[in-house]
Amino acid sequence: MPTSRCSQYRLRRRVHFYEVDSAGIVHFSWYFRYMEEAEHALWREAGLSIAPSGAEIGFPRVAAAFDYRQVLRFEEEFEVAIAITAIEPKTMSYACRITRGATPIATGTLRIACVNKLARPWKMIAIPSDIAARFEVAEA
Amino acid sequence: MPTSRCSQYRLRRRVHFYEVDSAGIVHFSWYFRYMEEAEHALWREAGLSIAPSGAEIGFPRVAAAFDYRQVLRFEEEFEVAIAITAIEPKTMSYACRITRGATPIATGTLRIACVNKLARPWKMIAIPSDIAARFEVAEA
Amino acid sequence: MPTSRCSQYRLRRRVHFYEVDSAGIVHFSWYFRYMEEAEHALWREAGLSIAPSGAEIGFPRVAAAFDYRQVLRFEEEFEVAIAITAIEPKTMSYACRITRGATPIATGTLRIACVNKLARPWKMIAIPSDIAARFEVAEA
Amino acid sequence: MPTSRCSQYRLRRRVHFYEVDSAGIVHFSWYFRYMEEAEHALWREAGLSIAPSGAEIGFPRVAAAFDYRQVLRFEEEFEVAIAITAIEPKTMSYACRITRGATPIATGTLRIACVNKLARPWKMIAIPSDIAARFEVAEA
Repeated sequence: MPTSRCSQYRLRRRVHFYEVDSAGIVHFSWYFRYMEEAEHALWREAGLSIAPSGAEIGFPRVAAAFDYRQVLRFEEEFEVAIAITAIEPKTMSYACRITRGATPIATGTLRIACVNKLARPWKMIAIPSDIAARFEVAEA
Repeated sequence: MPTSRCSQYRLRRRVHFYEVDSAGIVHFSWYFRYMEEAEHALWREAGLSIAPSGAEIGFPRVAAAFDYRQVLRFEEEFEVAIAITAIEPKTMSYACRITRGATPIATGTLRIACVNKLARPWKMIAIPSDIAARFEVAEA
Repeated sequence: MPTSRCSQYRLRRRVHFYEVDSAGIVHFSWYFRYMEEAEHALWREAGLSIAPSGAEIGFPRVAAAFDYRQVLRFEEEFEVAIAITAIEPKTMSYACRITRGATPIATGTLRIACVNKLARPWKMIAIPSDIAARFEVAEA
Repeated sequence: MPTSRCSQYRLRRRVHFYEVDSAGIVHFSWYFRYMEEAEHALWREAGLSIAPSGAEIGFPRVAAAFDYRQVLRFEEEFEVAIAITAIEPKTMSYACRITRGATPIATGTLRIACVNKLARPWKMIAIPSDIAARFEVAEA
């Protein structure tokens, strides 16, 4: 299969009005959505959807974190860089760096698990090989 | 001043429809908002608003994290327990435990800083003593 | 079955921090979620869930509107009153009134349709009689 | 002044995961945010920000509505076309059309007012002439 594996993605984004709180800065909860947007763009780059219609497997988040250094304000343009840091049989991990120009804004991490959504409760399973084969850990 | 210091709060909450994603579970970004709801209820319990109108100081988040064990679904009732784990001159830290009945759902942490919002960029300052005096670290 | 039919519901609510925008007021998009919260509480009052797990039918929104007169600010308590204004074979309509104490804040309308979610595209169907039987139009 | 007046804008957009509800479709509240995104892009096209930092005037929404015909699903690309339908001394009105390819998805309207944010309660005032001069009503 000639396609190269994907390991990272850079998303450019502008702050929307509804993401900004009464202190005039992007509410901290939005960073987790920005990180997820970049993750899903990475999957599309790999030729995949993380949640195709009717899928029996899913990729819920098992851990997420952000450290905030600077703020983002309305209409500012920023970049969300996500990189794969680990691919385990049942989980994948990412690191995320949000910047505005040369200014570091925040750094995050995300770990997702592969589950069978038909089981109740959901049961962790191995990431299907045709999915795992599209990704690789990014070089540091 | 006779009022006892506040160190923790338990918020009861029901899952709203708009918080649930296409996998049928509360989207992971919402847990950060749940944690913040409990934090603000703790501040009200202490006789304070964390963001009174016209305030020159603010309490932006400097770190936030969640580990997810089980899921929450539409209309489920759950509890968000937040407790103060550290009070430093310029920051406060919390631990958060989300449960549905006896089932542990997720655990989180949050660290906030006190800043002067009139400075650009915002400048970290000591938490005013009349605010710090309302809180104490929760017993483990 | 002796249970009386439900026609309206009053929800009490407090403004959360993440609902407030940089102008210091609840972002207008949130009113639609407040209206929906009240609607779902009305359905629970009627002994129903509007979206039970695994349901083959659903109730997507076909029209929604709000007129805004006054604003809501952080931590303010307000009331969301919803009332059924029409029950047609395939649709239901509501009127909504948001108030803060005696102050009118906003008025809204919502129309929902019953659909078979297994069809693609979704197909409008008659509201099942055991659901329609739980509701009635509110007196003006 | 050589700059031509702006009257409409077309925004291309992809559905994010967190915008999709448990029925697998974009939650109806998001359409209002899509409409606002397009409005703010129109203002930027006119060389303006609708909410510049420190502004004493603001543009709260006084009415908003959507009619929904078809649904949007995860990762679908769509277009949000907004056009100015009226410019009054103190208010502006827009019409919005959301489409996915040739498929009409939803149509909306929005009316905003110009207010002095320093007054309490906010007081409606005339739209400043240097702002009004950048816009004109779109041809039908």
